[in-house]
Amino acid sequence: MLREQLWEQGKKARQAARELAVLSSADKNKALEAMAVNLLKKQQQIIAANEIDMKAGREKGLSKALLDRLLLTENRIADMAQGLKEVAALPDPVGEIMEMVTRPNGLQVGRQRVPLGVVGIIYEARPNVTVDAAGLCLKTGNAVLLRGGSEAFQTNQVLVGILEGALREVGLPETAVQLVKTTEREAVDIMLKMHQYLDVLIPRGGAGLIRHVVENATVPVIETGTGNCHGYIDAAADLEQAVDIVINAKCQRPGVCNALETLLVHREVAPTVLPPLAQKLQEAGVELRGCPATQAILPQVKPATEEDWSTEYLDLILAVKVVDSYREAIEHIHRYSTGHSEMIITEDYNKARDFLQRVDAAAVYVNASTRFTDGNQFGFGAEIGISTQKLHARGPMGLRELTTYKFIILGNGQIRG
Amino acid sequence: MLREQLWEQGKKARQAARELAVLSSADKNKALEAMAVNLLKKQQQIIAANEIDMKAGREKGLSKALLDRLLLTENRIADMAQGLKEVAALPDPVGEIMEMVTRPNGLQVGRQRVPLGVVGIIYEARPNVTVDAAGLCLKTGNAVLLRGGSEAFQTNQVLVGILEGALREVGLPETAVQLVKTTEREAVDIMLKMHQYLDVLIPRGGAGLIRHVVENATVPVIETGTGNCHGYIDAAADLEQAVDIVINAKCQRPGVCNALETLLVHREVAPTVLPPLAQKLQEAGVELRGCPATQAILPQVKPATEEDWSTEYLDLILAVKVVDSYREAIEHIHRYSTGHSEMIITEDYNKARDFLQRVDAAAVYVNASTRFTDGNQFGFGAEIGISTQKLHARGPMGLRELTTYKFIILGNGQIRG
Repeated sequence: MLREQLWEQGKKARQAARELAVLSSADKNKALEAMAVNLLKKQQQIIAANEIDMKAGREKGLSKALLDRLLLTENRIADMAQGLKEVAALPDPVGEIMEMVTRPNGLQVGRQRVPLGVVGIIYEARPNVTVDAAGLCLKTGNAVLLRGGSEAFQTNQVLVGILEGALREVGLPETAVQLVKTTEREAVDIMLKMHQYLDVLIPRGGAGLIRHVVENATVPVIETGTGNCHGYIDAAADLEQAVDIVINAKCQRPGVCNALETLLVHREVAPTVLPPLAQKLQEAGVELRGCPATQAILPQVKPATEEDWSTEYLDLILAVKVVDSYREAIEHIHRYSTGHSEMIITEDYNKARDFLQRVDAAAVYVNASTRFTDGNQFGFGAEIGISTQKLHARGPMGLRELTTYKFIILGNGQIRG
Repeated sequence: MLREQLWEQGKKARQAARELAVLSSADKNKALEAMAVNLLKKQQQIIAANEIDMKAGREKGLSKALLDRLLLTENRIADMAQGLKEVAALPDPVGEIMEMVTRPNGLQVGRQRVPLGVVGIIYEARPNVTVDAAGLCLKTGNAVLLRGGSEAFQTNQVLVGILEGALREVGLPETAVQLVKTTEREAVDIMLKMHQYLDVLIPRGGAGLIRHVVENATVPVIETGTGNCHGYIDAAADLEQAVDIVINAKCQRPGVCNALETLLVHREVAPTVLPPLAQKLQEAGVELRGCPATQAILPQVKPATEEDWSTEYLDLILAVKVVDSYREAIEHIHRYSTGHSEMIITEDYNKARDFLQRVDAAAVYVNASTRFTDGNQFGFGAEIGISTQKLHARGPMGLRELTTYKFIILGNGQIRG
């Protein structure tokens, strides 16, 4: 029953995707603009639905942080509408011919950028993901099947209703944006196996959700997620710069995946840089956990355990390790990195070059804060997530990463000999 | 036990991948050349091992076709060696900086092409895959874990022994190329879940193998495979050209995934083109299965059933359907295409343009045979397989498709505000 309902949505999404694939950018942008207008026009309806979710959430005893993610206000709705307008203003990647060669037999072989088709998004409490994902998918000519968290179910229904209305208004298929219309958890497991209808799944949320999706999906998944990010202060670092960058990477927004979690310091500079750095970190409320050599320099610091090296705190905690050599820093990163963002602070050209080459992560930094790993900061204008896998997309994913390509081959009668 | 053995191989592959990632092209090419030389030098050893596999295969009653795929001769060994030399001569995609922008804050953000890391290949009887895959992975700086079919186990052990020897000779880690050293089927299922060690899995073989891998792997998979390829002869086709192209697409090598399986013909030209085309196809030994309208024109043709429209014959059989319109042809392709290769034959500019845009397949052709969907024919110089999925790579996969990218970010103290 539920399966049939989801398959039916999948089938409709596939049909919608075929129409979206041949739309002009102008038509897609018109729909995005209409969506933005309608969100603003119907904000009271959104807020009313959100209040039902918020009330249920409070009664269920959701944490303050979760309730905050769930909450929509007039300002937040205005931000969502603004986001849609910004996506409309971005260049459309679809249709670009990335290269075209003429083969010796006269055949022209080109690679053309096309939509992925149907994208499934599985996410948690944040209702702004509903609008952001719908906007990015529409801009790239993809149909989208959204599965939001049960906490936001009333809000999401109203939001998707408004988006569907905007699609109808401009004459596009309203099934281009669909919401899974149940809070049953089984719906997720059905989606994971819907490879006849879904071309890709993007899970957005906590580690548990992402692991569940990766381990059970037969649909190709783009894994987003965990950032156990390292910073290494080299013997040849500018130590003042090092202090500023580490403070920023740890404290500017500690709850996100590109925040610093472990600091490695070369033993030659550790006695000089650690005391002033520790003082500033502690002033900012950061708890330090150190290796024995760190503790020898900073006696007030708690010991770091093996677990600390592999923990993504997402909090005002920093693990600190003094290393004997650059090589030891690299080995530590090889061992504990989750492949998100890694940085070196050094004035040594050869170390910088080697670090960039040797460290295997989505984003590798020299002398800049890991906090820049973000679609907007990299100049993509929008982001659907940050990939920590290697297939298809790595790091911040913008519009281009929601496309694939096809080969187009133009001949005048060529046959293979 | 078996799991520990495979995990140990995975760990060694990961270490080898770290060394390979920073090698120069010259070093990788030296290894490829040494591999080619050693294969030729030790061909008697290869042939002796292959004879053991062939004997066991004959005793097990393997089909003639399978035995032919398993067989290695001096010529075939020379071809494998030549293939390695050709891969050595291709440009190395690793290290290329695909784009680099300077952000307003002075941060330079670039996308650099890097190896995937560790590639798992699961394949069947053909021992040349062992050498081809090892060569392509080495060239792109990837370590490879090979799981060949049990029928070729003796041959593969000798081949990989020779490749390891060549790696040692030139001072590279011999664990860059590893063979799973058991014929137990359980080894495949362990590999499918080894996402801590494998960055990607590429299955090469029959539909059953590929389905098993796609449905059970937690490691990201590049699906290769099924080609239910269509050709559509439009009302505005050059009919002589149409006959030549269809004959080529069906007959030039019917057992491969880019061969034509269903022909769609516009009703306006069906009475003119089908009789001469059918005669030539039947002369070439092709069995036709037609819709009622086809049978009305060609009374000798068997009826096509619903099953025929979705069958990849890989044989001298062609399903034929007369369609009332271009639109009906598109709808048939939407419904039955496996997304491999699709072609239109037309002199009508707008139909050609619309077909290229509307048909969702890895390779979309105008007026040329589907048989060109092949890495060599597209000018990549080598091919690890033909992807029929949309993530990461689509269509023929060359060296570039065995790479990913990372963001490299060069700063001079930037922090996020």
